[in-house]
Amino acid sequence: MDDAVRTTIDAEAGIGTVVLDRPAQRNPLSTSMMRQITAALRELSADDAVRVVVVAAAGPVFSAGHDLSELIDRTIEDERLVFEVCTEMMDTVQQIPQPVIAAVQGPAIAAGCQLAASCDLVVAASTAVFGTPGVRIGLFCSTPMVALSRAIGRKRAMQMLLTGETVDADTAADWGLVNLVVEPDRLDTAVGALAAKIVGASPLTVAIGKQAFYRQIDLPQDEAYELTVETMAANAVTCDAQEGMDAFLTKRTPVWRGK
Amino acid sequence: MDDAVRTTIDAEAGIGTVVLDRPAQRNPLSTSMMRQITAALRELSADDAVRVVVVAAAGPVFSAGHDLSELIDRTIEDERLVFEVCTEMMDTVQQIPQPVIAAVQGPAIAAGCQLAASCDLVVAASTAVFGTPGVRIGLFCSTPMVALSRAIGRKRAMQMLLTGETVDADTAADWGLVNLVVEPDRLDTAVGALAAKIVGASPLTVAIGKQAFYRQIDLPQDEAYELTVETMAANAVTCDAQEGMDAFLTKRTPVWRGK
Amino acid sequence: MDDAVRTTIDAEAGIGTVVLDRPAQRNPLSTSMMRQITAALRELSADDAVRVVVVAAAGPVFSAGHDLSELIDRTIEDERLVFEVCTEMMDTVQQIPQPVIAAVQGPAIAAGCQLAASCDLVVAASTAVFGTPGVRIGLFCSTPMVALSRAIGRKRAMQMLLTGETVDADTAADWGLVNLVVEPDRLDTAVGALAAKIVGASPLTVAIGKQAFYRQIDLPQDEAYELTVETMAANAVTCDAQEGMDAFLTKRTPVWRGK
Repeated sequence: MDDAVRTTIDAEAGIGTVVLDRPAQRNPLSTSMMRQITAALRELSADDAVRVVVVAAAGPVFSAGHDLSELIDRTIEDERLVFEVCTEMMDTVQQIPQPVIAAVQGPAIAAGCQLAASCDLVVAASTAVFGTPGVRIGLFCSTPMVALSRAIGRKRAMQMLLTGETVDADTAADWGLVNLVVEPDRLDTAVGALAAKIVGASPLTVAIGKQAFYRQIDLPQDEAYELTVETMAANAVTCDAQEGMDAFLTKRTPVWRGK
Repeated sequence: MDDAVRTTIDAEAGIGTVVLDRPAQRNPLSTSMMRQITAALRELSADDAVRVVVVAAAGPVFSAGHDLSELIDRTIEDERLVFEVCTEMMDTVQQIPQPVIAAVQGPAIAAGCQLAASCDLVVAASTAVFGTPGVRIGLFCSTPMVALSRAIGRKRAMQMLLTGETVDADTAADWGLVNLVVEPDRLDTAVGALAAKIVGASPLTVAIGKQAFYRQIDLPQDEAYELTVETMAANAVTCDAQEGMDAFLTKRTPVWRGK
Repeated sequence: MDDAVRTTIDAEAGIGTVVLDRPAQRNPLSTSMMRQITAALRELSADDAVRVVVVAAAGPVFSAGHDLSELIDRTIEDERLVFEVCTEMMDTVQQIPQPVIAAVQGPAIAAGCQLAASCDLVVAASTAVFGTPGVRIGLFCSTPMVALSRAIGRKRAMQMLLTGETVDADTAADWGLVNLVVEPDRLDTAVGALAAKIVGASPLTVAIGKQAFYRQIDLPQDEAYELTVETMAANAVTCDAQEGMDAFLTKRTPVWRGK
């Protein structure tokens, strides 16, 4: 099996990148490609040089979604497996300790839209569009709706899911799906600049915060506070918090030790 | 009892419409009218020709909310019944398999605002306004707040609920309560055009998707994925999904069989 | 211990104000100041003349967040206590029966941002900025994220939490964190005008509504309706609702009795 994804590490910038690399096929999220993305995310996350992970794609399309050939003439067990492999990939994006930035250069469709929506942060080129058109081919985008409805709210998610129409990058930004829209030739620069704001931070602190974010977001507020009071107290006694606060008060650059 | 609502079916367009039809009284949501709306929704939903349901209103006001005469000098059992009948209507909007579009031509107030907010999609004329002014007459809009706060978020919902002030259609769209704002004379056309984007889809697929949406939206993300993985696997083995995917790959128009 | 907060009551306007009053220190949320704010909120809430509570701050900064000296070289029990005292303050804002408006005149940072986000309504001067920069000093803003992520959604909260960058008042309003942005010299007037829209309402009704809001917001929709049907039925039989509805129908000014 030749690789459907490429990974690169820019150790100086602190950025590890996963590139979906089947441009001629519009980067289909076949089970093979999804497993490779999951493996790549885990591999990058294990590298101390990687402080931020970028998910990018080769060619004009970010991803057209699932590989339909894997969904036709299959048993329900086969179908279930596809969506389980897909969910594992989406979960991995949120489970690895490093922040994950989607760099969306073109159409992010169905599970491709879900992949972008599952990333912690999204930078989009003005050429990006987002859509969940499964309804038109008889297969409602039910797993993408989980990520989408949690990012943009009910009415807008329903509009995308029921009509199957795409929204452009500016609309996606207005709706909170995208953090930043830039001209296509500035996408890499903008992703690098956003990553640069994060890579200087203590990786331990970032990991504590990212994990706490996803643990608290689905809890009732009182339980969310119970969890985060404990998280923040534990964070506060780490060497990196003590170092960071001292550095701040004495106006020097902190030296992080945790990871 | 003469009818407070009218229903029409445009079989060619695939649209069933419920019209609140007490314009001189500002379409009060009396228990009688609410029961008629609930019954009309169920009746329309049972008709195979109906692929999309529209909730519209006659006259200049969409609905001024509950009929206050039913809330004055009553026992708490009487009061409870009013809000139970109301909640059943709101639930029915979300439970029927067809998408429901609110066509809001004028003020949607209190339970009238809630009715719009409970619809899957909302198209508003520029003459529409939305408000929850119960606080001003001593009866806080506590059941409307359920739909409203889930559509527009905390601070904005609090502002509407605590001040009782209305917001205009553009603001409602900016806040995610409304999908589209059009000139009053284009409301019917715009609702028809939005419906037309949905009626071509497999009704079985749309029903699966709508039901999954409301089941997953209140779940923690991991449980939402458990549910939708199963939903999507089951959807994928239906005839309509198999037909839709094949039609897409062979560039022909699909023929739906499910319902 | 001299007081770090001032309280004032404008009985005619129906407004009680808590002012964070350590401007030279940028209004640090030390445990002492947080306990004083909590006590002040409770004291104001017990005063029948107070229909709306305002949280304001002296000097150019709303609040720079926790007092770092209380977080350095401490046991985990000490740290936990700081965040417990903080959470109690945030909870108190939402638990007192009166609506609480934050009047944010300058930077609201870390727990200061959380305090604003925890208020029912937020009015900001154009000089206000909001940020959660704990990540930069090794101590992720994990408790602030609870209030922030519930106000502005996932991607935008992640952006603020991971980059530590502040957002200006207009952006905060666009994202739903702030209800209204005004010129700095109009902040007091705007807060007074917003409060004036609320103070005329039945305090009993407002209290019922505010309490129901926070109880229902974290519930699945069906449980939220179960709760609010009961809330609204009980509200409807109160003297104030009966008075309010009668006054509305007879076009006279209601006289509230409940509290």
